[in-house]
Amino acid sequence: MRKDHRSECVINLMVEIFGDPWSLLVIRDIIFMNRRHFRELLTNSPEGIASNILADRLHRLVQQGIIVKSQDASHKQKAIYSLTEKGIGLLPLLMEMVTWGRTYLPPFRPRGLARLLDVGGPKLTERFMAELRETHLPKSSVRKPRRSPKPARISAMRKIQTAYEAALITRNR
Amino acid sequence: MRKDHRSECVINLMVEIFGDPWSLLVIRDIIFMNRRHFRELLTNSPEGIASNILADRLHRLVQQGIIVKSQDASHKQKAIYSLTEKGIGLLPLLMEMVTWGRTYLPPFRPRGLARLLDVGGPKLTERFMAELRETHLPKSSVRKPRRSPKPARISAMRKIQTAYEAALITRNR
Repeated sequence: MRKDHRSECVINLMVEIFGDPWSLLVIRDIIFMNRRHFRELLTNSPEGIASNILADRLHRLVQQGIIVKSQDASHKQKAIYSLTEKGIGLLPLLMEMVTWGRTYLPPFRPRGLARLLDVGGPKLTERFMAELRETHLPKSSVRKPRRSPKPARISAMRKIQTAYEAALITRNR
Repeated sequence: MRKDHRSECVINLMVEIFGDPWSLLVIRDIIFMNRRHFRELLTNSPEGIASNILADRLHRLVQQGIIVKSQDASHKQKAIYSLTEKGIGLLPLLMEMVTWGRTYLPPFRPRGLARLLDVGGPKLTERFMAELRETHLPKSSVRKPRRSPKPARISAMRKIQTAYEAALITRNR
């Protein structure tokens, strides 16, 4: 057994990365809200994440290769966080969490995101992942999707982000 | 916003339940290893869970309605833990974790469980869930599966548990 892991069970390795009260929420905000800068992630956090915790989790996620930190092309002083393929690959897992939550957590009424998932299904997830790749990955590394999404359609990403934001505002403010 | 949750975002509600280093591992051992008694869960834990943490997590999972605690019919002094439908419903999420882990976590070589998942796919998950229902739920509440599994086949549960145990033994001991 590698000394740096409690066990090499893959579920344990996942828990070692995400088994804390904040990591998945940071990922969620990057994926669903397209929040890419430290300040946005801090001030718009629905759960009120503290700045030292946010800094630590972003650092850890970079170390894990789930996000990368780079200089924002439009604001030279600002760092921008982007998902990697490994980070984008978390979308089906987050979707599965939403599915379980909307089935079994009574206070949760399927609004916003969950409702959209009902309608959109796996197709929407697939389209969303393709758009995340275009938005986050370096241009050269983006794999050509088998069929490129029609530009006239409202983007899956915008649809999901709008639904998610609306649901959070209704619920929390 | 309800005062007892940081936000009502379903992903946050999930993180409030499972965002700690142990809860999902306890669930994993109950689901994949069919460990139903406190002592088994304690002494066979691949990650060496402490007894006070195990007691606390079992208590919390009971409160969440994910497992129930009852008197073991064969050992009157022993408590036995059983999954509820809500707990069995976590299987697809655990499977999604395994899928992500085997794709993106380099030290993890798809052996045992992950390999079996490759071969068995969603069908195996479905069969496993049906068997979990038969094993854990009170007899009266088990929904009839659309097609009952052929008795001659090796049970999905036994297959998964054997593969999982073999993989852990090879890796950790």
